[in-house]
Amino acid sequence: MHNIYFTPGPSSLYYTVEQHIKKALRSGIASISHRSEQFKDIYRLADSHLRELLNLPPNYTVLFTNSATVVWDLATESLITDTSLHVVNGAFSEKFYKVAKNAGKNTLLVESDWGQLPQIPQNLVKQADHIALTHNETSTGVAMPLDTIYKVREQNPDAIISVDAVSSLPYLNIDYTKIDALYVSVQKCFGLPAGLGIWLVNDRCLARAEKNLSKQKGLISYHNLTALARQAMNLQTVSTPNVLGIYLLAQVTADMLHRGIQMIRSEIKYKSAIFYKMIESHAKLTPFVTDKSLRSDTVIVLDTQGYTKDLQSFLASKKMIIGSGYGKMKGQQLRIANFPTHSKEQFEMLTDLVETW
Amino acid sequence: MHNIYFTPGPSSLYYTVEQHIKKALRSGIASISHRSEQFKDIYRLADSHLRELLNLPPNYTVLFTNSATVVWDLATESLITDTSLHVVNGAFSEKFYKVAKNAGKNTLLVESDWGQLPQIPQNLVKQADHIALTHNETSTGVAMPLDTIYKVREQNPDAIISVDAVSSLPYLNIDYTKIDALYVSVQKCFGLPAGLGIWLVNDRCLARAEKNLSKQKGLISYHNLTALARQAMNLQTVSTPNVLGIYLLAQVTADMLHRGIQMIRSEIKYKSAIFYKMIESHAKLTPFVTDKSLRSDTVIVLDTQGYTKDLQSFLASKKMIIGSGYGKMKGQQLRIANFPTHSKEQFEMLTDLVETW
Repeated sequence: MHNIYFTPGPSSLYYTVEQHIKKALRSGIASISHRSEQFKDIYRLADSHLRELLNLPPNYTVLFTNSATVVWDLATESLITDTSLHVVNGAFSEKFYKVAKNAGKNTLLVESDWGQLPQIPQNLVKQADHIALTHNETSTGVAMPLDTIYKVREQNPDAIISVDAVSSLPYLNIDYTKIDALYVSVQKCFGLPAGLGIWLVNDRCLARAEKNLSKQKGLISYHNLTALARQAMNLQTVSTPNVLGIYLLAQVTADMLHRGIQMIRSEIKYKSAIFYKMIESHAKLTPFVTDKSLRSDTVIVLDTQGYTKDLQSFLASKKMIIGSGYGKMKGQQLRIANFPTHSKEQFEMLTDLVETW
Repeated sequence: MHNIYFTPGPSSLYYTVEQHIKKALRSGIASISHRSEQFKDIYRLADSHLRELLNLPPNYTVLFTNSATVVWDLATESLITDTSLHVVNGAFSEKFYKVAKNAGKNTLLVESDWGQLPQIPQNLVKQADHIALTHNETSTGVAMPLDTIYKVREQNPDAIISVDAVSSLPYLNIDYTKIDALYVSVQKCFGLPAGLGIWLVNDRCLARAEKNLSKQKGLISYHNLTALARQAMNLQTVSTPNVLGIYLLAQVTADMLHRGIQMIRSEIKYKSAIFYKMIESHAKLTPFVTDKSLRSDTVIVLDTQGYTKDLQSFLASKKMIIGSGYGKMKGQQLRIANFPTHSKEQFEMLTDLVETW
């Protein structure tokens, strides 16, 4: 039996990926030119499947990057004019804040302890021309309620709102007219091998980038937003992309469409519900996020009273691999991914094992 | 029968890659955490195989990037202090020049027509603190003689010398003590799927980067050279890398070591020799690079008198895919990759077909 990876990315591959890779090898996908019509067809498919899956409005462009983290650089370069507000409640939201700060941008910081979500004062929201929100803090398992995001938009309709949905898309069902940009890593919920990021940007971002880059002093990234978007118009990329990754994305999104995004989302809700319910009465484990309204459905973080390694070893003996806490929480927490590839049966088995451990 | 891709990257996968991917899928490599010991073991293997294959001195660090093109940004940021000399004789050498120029660095340009190599005046070499040389111009099929590179070093031992070996490593057998940095794409001679770059940097680069980044105003890339190197010391990466790509690199470099790098290099020489010899008396095709001492062995570029599509179609009917000319030369030239994965038999067949066409 193979290991099942409940790690919060890389994680188990989407269950159809292996067959898609084999087919890709047979048909030479990894060898085709990224300037060929065949590649454009693959980009077109990935683009249209993503649009359908996410209900993405037509004023959005689908960009491929080589990772999600590079978006911190590219967004700082192109989307922040003067002042960026960062809502920080974990390691990844903090990293984007630091990139913007180190770049010499005016940064406004609203911060909370890990596992919580800070209040976002309206006066700060109004001062920013760019606002960085993290829908799903992969380090802490806090999910920002959509109403919180939408309220920020109401308070400052002019600011560009960038959303980190690295570990929640396509589970996340967001109204794209109330944000401007969103980025994601494919090795999380999409269940693909690492090495590809997706950056969704609307026309407001493109206009902002054009303006900001024209004023830029110093290095302009070779893969800057305007360059990426200009190539994307022709279903092309600035440099040789992860062609195999984009092909697999096109296939997996087709599979997800076939399965139905509502079904995928409700299964994730079901799996997270049974797991959180079990944990409530667990003798050794407690959910790190105490406010139930902030608990992530896709990345479940537990306090372990130091039992992290014990439980990991026990589950590993059952071929189930779960994640350590992030960074400073490594030994005191566990992180469990609840992604579309994890079946109800697998999650029920995991829940039973954790309960009886 | 599968297509054989003689395109100059992406190209046919190294002939062992398919089995390595299947093994990786069976053992869950694409799902492991990039912070795990298992990943460190993979990095260690790739690192040590590369060192052995390339005869890389111990003062070099092996860095992984998500593409080779991103190195233009990262080198401009970290390695150029004030003045960078660019030897430009094709599209890729020109792109690096433009990145450095747009970043506001002092740039010195030495340029020739495509298909040629400019003289490099000693007075310019002496003015630069960074010198960008392209060993193998993938757009034109010009290879810079090693003596030219070494002479630059003699004329200015203090400058950092960056070498673009995107489409020639590991065929390229260079003395690493006479350069400082070298970057490569795995989808060329290594025969891997696109989506991974390798950047080899010596201790002089690390010292230079430390100094330059500390003075930097404006954006510092999240994946800057110092950050990459600090993580690499612990066989780690700044963000989630293309784990599968690094695994495949470790395997393919092992296969190449097993085959013998001398054997691989002499086969490439043999294949290029028979092809160039045939072309000399061809009725419709002529080598683009007239100076034989500058002809690339790994990327062969031909003038076609407009017969580009005809020959491509003819060869495609025989399941052999060859590349168009690059950019402005698309319709007038052909580019043929001669990489380690292309067997002598395949190349002899290609040579015969082109000869009798």
